[in-house]
Amino acid sequence: MFKRPSLGFWFDFSSPYSYLSAMRIEAVAADRGLDLTWNPFLLSPILGKQGYRASPYVVVPDKGRYMRADMMRQCEIAGLSFRLPDPFPQNPIPAGRVALAARKEPWIGRFVRSVFHAEFAEGRDITDQGLLTDLLQQAGADPALWLARAETMDIKIGLRVAVTEAEHLGIFGAPSFITPDGELFWGNDRLDEALDWSLRITH
Amino acid sequence: MFKRPSLGFWFDFSSPYSYLSAMRIEAVAADRGLDLTWNPFLLSPILGKQGYRASPYVVVPDKGRYMRADMMRQCEIAGLSFRLPDPFPQNPIPAGRVALAARKEPWIGRFVRSVFHAEFAEGRDITDQGLLTDLLQQAGADPALWLARAETMDIKIGLRVAVTEAEHLGIFGAPSFITPDGELFWGNDRLDEALDWSLRITH
Repeated sequence: MFKRPSLGFWFDFSSPYSYLSAMRIEAVAADRGLDLTWNPFLLSPILGKQGYRASPYVVVPDKGRYMRADMMRQCEIAGLSFRLPDPFPQNPIPAGRVALAARKEPWIGRFVRSVFHAEFAEGRDITDQGLLTDLLQQAGADPALWLARAETMDIKIGLRVAVTEAEHLGIFGAPSFITPDGELFWGNDRLDEALDWSLRITH
Repeated sequence: MFKRPSLGFWFDFSSPYSYLSAMRIEAVAADRGLDLTWNPFLLSPILGKQGYRASPYVVVPDKGRYMRADMMRQCEIAGLSFRLPDPFPQNPIPAGRVALAARKEPWIGRFVRSVFHAEFAEGRDITDQGLLTDLLQQAGADPALWLARAETMDIKIGLRVAVTEAEHLGIFGAPSFITPDGELFWGNDRLDEALDWSLRITH
């Protein structure tokens, strides 16, 4: 059976720039005939090894201030709302586990977008089980089933394994894109280049 | 007398992405009727306060590897050669002092581009006084005069003052652009947005 080439989308639910990519990646990949693999992971253990004890946006206040101004502008260009959640950054683990459990479901894109929208357009707390329940329901999934799957040992360990896998791919930030031949592209600003690269090497 | 609005170009001679901006900024600013101020500074004291003991490209090997691959691609898109100097990063202080001393000279753009070209297209050592002498001569300047000015106490202190000034502007990376109304844009990827912003607020 013919398998279409697949672009890996590595995202962290606490990452503002992952929001920018998440909202458009399924549509732009489909436009170009590329399949997508959804790879939730956690950036903080990788940043921890780089010496960060907390988010760079918190540790370096100028970087945090700039991110807010830049995100406002990038969201405006993209036609998206932007509201930073409080607290920022949010804990990405509960939603990340659900996304990992459901990564091959047909509704995964809808669910991931709805989490990022709640977090960065509405400023909501994405660790709230009530919110995750609502978002799963809106995606057409069974909330009780998927929230239970998200808390299995397989998935808990799986999200940690995803971090190790990300490190092996050379990932050091989010969002990151891995082309079918293993090339890394970092940041929402490089999504289009990652798509172009994927098409060039597969045609 | 009418003074045209001026975009501040903050660059560090050791920064690869500053090379990408330096090679085109004078032309693109002139195209849009914007004056340019050349602001050499040193990023390492700012990164030092963020906790970095050396360049992030060295401290985080994955980041260094990615930068090389990304720079290769960005340079190809821009029609520029790319060759990382050895050692990398280079010490930006000697060339930075010359650029600071000469920042208001009509040949400053030519000189800055020639330093970045020697460093990142030819992989040369930009602390070499013979090289700086040649580049000043090619820019039409008197090498002995400008190398002497670069070593005055005023300029030595001036380059440190530039770091403090950069911090006050919220700068945490290079290249950075400061619009006429004080807005910060970070990275070669944001140069066009910085130009658009500058035009919007001055027209």
